[in-house]
Amino acid sequence: MQTLHVHTPGHSYPIHIGSRLLDNLAEYIRPHISGKAVIISNQTVAPLYLNPVQAACQQLGISVCNIILPDGEQYKNNESLQQIYTGLLQHHADRRTTILALGGGVIGDLAGFAAATYQRGIPFIQIPTTLLSQVDSSVGGKTGINHPLGKNMIGAFYQPQAVIADTSTLQTLPPREFSAGLAEVIKYALLGDIDFLVQLEQTMPGIMRQEQTALADTIRHCCQMKAHIVEQDEKEQGIRALLNLGHTFGHAIETQMGYGNWLHGEAVAAGMVLAARLSEHKGYLKTADTERIIHLLQAARLPVAPPEFAIDTWLALMQHDKKNQAGQIRLVILKQLGQAAVEAGFSREDMAALLQSI
Amino acid sequence: MQTLHVHTPGHSYPIHIGSRLLDNLAEYIRPHISGKAVIISNQTVAPLYLNPVQAACQQLGISVCNIILPDGEQYKNNESLQQIYTGLLQHHADRRTTILALGGGVIGDLAGFAAATYQRGIPFIQIPTTLLSQVDSSVGGKTGINHPLGKNMIGAFYQPQAVIADTSTLQTLPPREFSAGLAEVIKYALLGDIDFLVQLEQTMPGIMRQEQTALADTIRHCCQMKAHIVEQDEKEQGIRALLNLGHTFGHAIETQMGYGNWLHGEAVAAGMVLAARLSEHKGYLKTADTERIIHLLQAARLPVAPPEFAIDTWLALMQHDKKNQAGQIRLVILKQLGQAAVEAGFSREDMAALLQSI
Repeated sequence: MQTLHVHTPGHSYPIHIGSRLLDNLAEYIRPHISGKAVIISNQTVAPLYLNPVQAACQQLGISVCNIILPDGEQYKNNESLQQIYTGLLQHHADRRTTILALGGGVIGDLAGFAAATYQRGIPFIQIPTTLLSQVDSSVGGKTGINHPLGKNMIGAFYQPQAVIADTSTLQTLPPREFSAGLAEVIKYALLGDIDFLVQLEQTMPGIMRQEQTALADTIRHCCQMKAHIVEQDEKEQGIRALLNLGHTFGHAIETQMGYGNWLHGEAVAAGMVLAARLSEHKGYLKTADTERIIHLLQAARLPVAPPEFAIDTWLALMQHDKKNQAGQIRLVILKQLGQAAVEAGFSREDMAALLQSI
Repeated sequence: MQTLHVHTPGHSYPIHIGSRLLDNLAEYIRPHISGKAVIISNQTVAPLYLNPVQAACQQLGISVCNIILPDGEQYKNNESLQQIYTGLLQHHADRRTTILALGGGVIGDLAGFAAATYQRGIPFIQIPTTLLSQVDSSVGGKTGINHPLGKNMIGAFYQPQAVIADTSTLQTLPPREFSAGLAEVIKYALLGDIDFLVQLEQTMPGIMRQEQTALADTIRHCCQMKAHIVEQDEKEQGIRALLNLGHTFGHAIETQMGYGNWLHGEAVAAGMVLAARLSEHKGYLKTADTERIIHLLQAARLPVAPPEFAIDTWLALMQHDKKNQAGQIRLVILKQLGQAAVEAGFSREDMAALLQSI
């Protein structure tokens, strides 16, 4: 098992990464839990992993109950949040109750936001069971839900007490979701670490076979990179915005196609190719660089082109992005492979040229 | 005009208190606003004070729009919150947009919680127009909404950029609401300042006539007391709980009677008398002390007895209180006039004796 420590102002917490951590879960949650526990999970993950989590609580003599939601990005909404609040109140959860978020990014975001806002904040522990949530969404304190008018529009910055990433849970993940998680892995290489990019080009076949060493090393490296960025910029005032590489396009794809039809990572993969093409148009990347990105994404079995929709649709969708300032579209582009930057001032013509080129 | 500065970890902000501050509002908001502005108000306050707030924004060259909600505690709920989110998205509010909360405690709590959670946090300025919100709810960063199963169950700690308390707006406040605000004023005296209690006993007739000097001094004193407590305990881990004197009983009254039928301050007034009676039963207060409290509350034209409902109803209602730990009811009692403390371990018998005594 490997352990990282993440430091944010006024708070720090451990991330444990390794194979079969759920077998000894009591040991990892014991230091972080005092009152009772409420497990929040979904109908896909609960039948697989609810038992060991409940058993760990019982082993510690902690009263435990569950709130089980339907599975899918389309349920990361206000209705699910209200269902959690009602469940917490019915279970008489108080300020010492700890929420255990057992599932992928949707469960982590929902349960984390519920923890941030129930009685103005109660503790929570992340137990991510997807590659996406293990590399990305369980680090950084972003919690929240979607709004019918835009993705992730409602939320809070709120840090967990601990993250327990059991890599063996990825064996039950559908291959398409495993690939979607790799989109975020590749994102870290592109935005800030050319050596990691080279390493991924070599290890991707082993990662695709879920070789445990390659997998754990990869997850740890991404968590470290993200933790490093978040420690410098908890509230997303500066460099943290680089983590949104591919995401402005990606969110537009998800919104237009309906949440859940394209997986988040698939939309980000196509979005990163668009960001790379735009970086080419700006003269930062060579065509060969973009092709290298496409090749790696394809090795991870990810889509490399967006669905077709009109330029006005793209522009309308991208107007709600949280990075925008004073009505201007701001995007994360690549200055070169392994180096990202935020740029503003993209015109309708830039977007038209970009979308015609693909 | 008088100005206090409130300091919390990582943030500090001014509270301006005085007569006719709305006439020069641009001056007070100028240092705190950069992007556009969204005014959140209600259908009672907007016709009275929306114009000067809009004019101040226009004077500063700031784009401004409004979200106007129905008036009343019964609208401090998820539906109003969603209405605000939708309005913010329709107005293309971004992370630099500032929310101006124009109204009483309900508007402040709702708008503050929307600011805390829209795009994971945008700036907001409080412009409280009721006595209750001027003395109490605009200091301390408590924001949130009610849930059908309990009051103030959903929320966040989130600090404003500034508070502008114009005491002349209280002239349009219904007398019953003005009295309700005085319940919180009297609470400050009871929980921590016997000299202030003596002063209030003398100045209450002048305050009731809205003599501006007495009024401004009183509001400033309460804000100072609250700011002092909040600075020591932003997240309500310790002494801040004392501010809930009368509130556990008060919340029970509000929940049982339906939000809005008893004003918050009225319920707190009756709740403080119950807390005093309980303190008598515990041997801390003399009957004469409780009578002194009742006399002052009556001078402020406040109710001093709760509505009648069964003991089991009281106990069920009080079980959801956020101060509770491990299922035990915890209450703020008075060790003596001017000194409050939190005590746990109240039994069904204590409550029965208390409720039979009144």
